[in-house]
Amino acid sequence: MGKEREKLWREVRELSLGSEIDRLHSPPSPLHFLRDYVSQSKPCVISNAISHWPALKLWSHPAYLSGALSNDYVSLHLTPNGSADAVTPVTSAGDLCFASAHVEKVPFPEALQAVRSSSSKRETVGYLQQQNDCFRTEYSTVASDCDGDIAWATEALGCSPEAVNLWIGTHLSVTSFHKDHYENLYAVVSGEKHFLLLPPTDVHRLYVQPYPAANYSYHRDTETFKLEIEQPLRHVPWCSVDPYPSPEREASERLKYPFFFDGPKPFHCTLKAGEILYLPSMWFHHVSQTPGDGGYTVAVNYWYDMQFDIKYAYFNFLQSVSYESSSLSPILSWREDEDSESGDGEV
Amino acid sequence: MGKEREKLWREVRELSLGSEIDRLHSPPSPLHFLRDYVSQSKPCVISNAISHWPALKLWSHPAYLSGALSNDYVSLHLTPNGSADAVTPVTSAGDLCFASAHVEKVPFPEALQAVRSSSSKRETVGYLQQQNDCFRTEYSTVASDCDGDIAWATEALGCSPEAVNLWIGTHLSVTSFHKDHYENLYAVVSGEKHFLLLPPTDVHRLYVQPYPAANYSYHRDTETFKLEIEQPLRHVPWCSVDPYPSPEREASERLKYPFFFDGPKPFHCTLKAGEILYLPSMWFHHVSQTPGDGGYTVAVNYWYDMQFDIKYAYFNFLQSVSYESSSLSPILSWREDEDSESGDGEV
Repeated sequence: MGKEREKLWREVRELSLGSEIDRLHSPPSPLHFLRDYVSQSKPCVISNAISHWPALKLWSHPAYLSGALSNDYVSLHLTPNGSADAVTPVTSAGDLCFASAHVEKVPFPEALQAVRSSSSKRETVGYLQQQNDCFRTEYSTVASDCDGDIAWATEALGCSPEAVNLWIGTHLSVTSFHKDHYENLYAVVSGEKHFLLLPPTDVHRLYVQPYPAANYSYHRDTETFKLEIEQPLRHVPWCSVDPYPSPEREASERLKYPFFFDGPKPFHCTLKAGEILYLPSMWFHHVSQTPGDGGYTVAVNYWYDMQFDIKYAYFNFLQSVSYESSSLSPILSWREDEDSESGDGEV
Repeated sequence: MGKEREKLWREVRELSLGSEIDRLHSPPSPLHFLRDYVSQSKPCVISNAISHWPALKLWSHPAYLSGALSNDYVSLHLTPNGSADAVTPVTSAGDLCFASAHVEKVPFPEALQAVRSSSSKRETVGYLQQQNDCFRTEYSTVASDCDGDIAWATEALGCSPEAVNLWIGTHLSVTSFHKDHYENLYAVVSGEKHFLLLPPTDVHRLYVQPYPAANYSYHRDTETFKLEIEQPLRHVPWCSVDPYPSPEREASERLKYPFFFDGPKPFHCTLKAGEILYLPSMWFHHVSQTPGDGGYTVAVNYWYDMQFDIKYAYFNFLQSVSYESSSLSPILSWREDEDSESGDGEV
């Protein structure tokens, strides 16, 4: 089985994906987008698609945003290290959990200040994000600085966005490998976003495993975090692989996750302000960022409903095939529809 | 593996295909067609899409066709039983081969007469077909009775048809289960066509095996056929299952091919004159027919290039997973790209 799976990883690249993400220098027609990207589950980067957004000029000025949103409460995510929704040691023995950020609603100016003053030294990193359509709720005051949808994607996909999310962070905030059950149009407004991408065919290379859910809580008086396992116990299936292990962990990580480190390289792409990434549903992605002039990175992403079609059924079949490789690899078998404990059903 | 594969067969039906082929009562827009059918690898039947073709009125009259094509030579396929490109016993011991028809070029009026006078009693069945773009070559004289393409499909797929084929036959001609590496728009002009359809996910249910290629040759003086294995030996991978075995063979066929007979029923659809079937690439199909007023069935099909994308890579992976089921099932493993001996690469 191992040989056949490796052939699949290679074949999808040779036949369809190539070695680099396609770049389009103007918005595609709905038909072109649907035929050459969505239907084929193939990402692309589109330039010059949001040049008309006022946000592109305005949002790199913290004074503008803080002024416009001075009375709005937004969800601030706090962690000691910038890794939320990530596999994290929870005991001194190194037992791992799936850690969620401490979330609190604070006035936007205070929240932005917390993001901009994030510090690894002080072990407090703020990230403005909330994947619950926050752009159209918490940030409705500035919603008119962007379009409400990506028009050619809406026409191609035949529906309006199910959720629109805003992200404001610094280089300290990193999103670990995961996938979403949405078609994703991801627009960078200020700064840069760096994506590592792996197609759904490569699911075994990420060693998805169930981890006990845990939550950070932040204690303002001592400026410290506590990480506690949720009770009753709940398990979240999540990717085990950190693509950028620290030098002292690299050798052991490479031994633990040979499919990832020894297989085809993930696709890498950097999105500059003004560019959109089409990230197909079920693609695994790892996201980091470089701040722009304002000292932060801003992005808006549009989630459109995906089709649960033959591609999704094939993915489930592939995922259900267990690892069976070296003794270092966990013997795992996972099915989407058995992920009932994962909450939002996303890995 | 068997359990996971059965779940795949069920899941693709539950999530996407449903229990019956969709029917559209007017031609879809290119976007609708691409989004809801091509991208999802989902068949549909379209009515009222070719009502304007002169062929619909003219071609059920043998006199019209024979008059219009009186000077044209066309490819007549002859077999003793109406089964060409099918698995057939080649020895009295029952050894099986992949049998191709005797093909000769004859003037159209004579060819049509051979089709209309086909007889199982006389063991001579004629079928007018040639899957090499014959409609635009051998039948160019009457090509203007139809459209040169299916306009909304051409726009959706972003290319013109690679081949257009004509089929004139009787109830005696049956096409065995196989798949094509093309997106197929199949239009019935006279009579009815009956399709049994299975999605690519169900590949193991058809027990694709390599059979030695063989050819019928027809001896006009004795009005008999000879079936001979090709030399040098060449193997063609083909579906082993006959969905309609004779009563005396039924019990043994059911034992030999349990995945087919015990699994989900194939989709069945009957196309009437004036209807089009969208048959997605890689779908397995078995075709039979009921003659119209002229004593024959006529169909024109448009083959468009398919995308060799992630769906195709998934299919190849699935196909490469061996059978491993009951002792009655052959242990088989097959990959598309190793089909080099199959000639046109089709199963």
